[in-house]
Amino acid sequence: MADEALFQFLHSEIIQYVKGVESGESVRAWDTRETENGRCVSKLENMGFRVGQGLIERFTKDTPRFKDELDVMKFICKDFWTSVFKKQIDNLRTNHQGIYVLQDNKFRLLTQLSAGKQHLEHAPKFLAFTCGLVRGALSNLGVKSIVTAEVSVMPACKFQVMIQKM
Amino acid sequence: MADEALFQFLHSEIIQYVKGVESGESVRAWDTRETENGRCVSKLENMGFRVGQGLIERFTKDTPRFKDELDVMKFICKDFWTSVFKKQIDNLRTNHQGIYVLQDNKFRLLTQLSAGKQHLEHAPKFLAFTCGLVRGALSNLGVKSIVTAEVSVMPACKFQVMIQKM
Repeated sequence: MADEALFQFLHSEIIQYVKGVESGESVRAWDTRETENGRCVSKLENMGFRVGQGLIERFTKDTPRFKDELDVMKFICKDFWTSVFKKQIDNLRTNHQGIYVLQDNKFRLLTQLSAGKQHLEHAPKFLAFTCGLVRGALSNLGVKSIVTAEVSVMPACKFQVMIQKM
Repeated sequence: MADEALFQFLHSEIIQYVKGVESGESVRAWDTRETENGRCVSKLENMGFRVGQGLIERFTKDTPRFKDELDVMKFICKDFWTSVFKKQIDNLRTNHQGIYVLQDNKFRLLTQLSAGKQHLEHAPKFLAFTCGLVRGALSNLGVKSIVTAEVSVMPACKFQVMIQKM
């Protein structure tokens, strides 16, 4: 529980800091609130990417080779998710054509946010790091992807992984 | 081990990002490398402070009241340090006049840095967050302090806590 708290607090601090920096920078007149948000999300995503790369390297040190893409995705949903978020992904679906949807019914990094609809606009900032985390982990396992996330009812959320064929 | 890795990677990312931001901002001519470093260290220290405040609140939820200042310091050295860094402080000394020196012979957040003397100049950035962490934790336990750190031989390091009498 201690570790989880540490991660959660640190994650919030990063969001606050990045938000402050990116909005501070947008004194330029042509910067709308949207581009500001976009920059913020992309910074967080990049951090997540590098952390994901580092983590997966340690986690898979003694893991046998993965059979295929689905095998990799299952590892992300079970072992990887449990290490980082203390629970598994609740549901994994795929169209067998390179799209995977990972559903977490109680996503840790959203449980601090209140459930009201008015907070939904802040959700992307709370998901960006994790999107990067998944993309980074997959990337180091040889799977190039685009990862996006959406929230309909907090704290449940869905991560969509689109595999990029190389 | 997984949690530890997560914390370490995230901590490095924050340092990198803050460093980038602070050096990017210092296009102003009067900014020297030192003021840049100073700003960076103080941002990291502030993040640590808030994380420390949050963590200690959770950790002490079911703890009996502390007898005195020394009792508080012992809690920081044992329970708090173990939760965050997976080991206790190796040595605690005090002059009984409000100065405490906490020595960690193998400080986790320095073990990634190479041991060469040429890296010593980067050490403050790797210690700032933790200084803030201790200051924040103490602050929420009613102890106002100034916390500094020094490294002589990596990865050993000493944190000096100066209690501010109110």
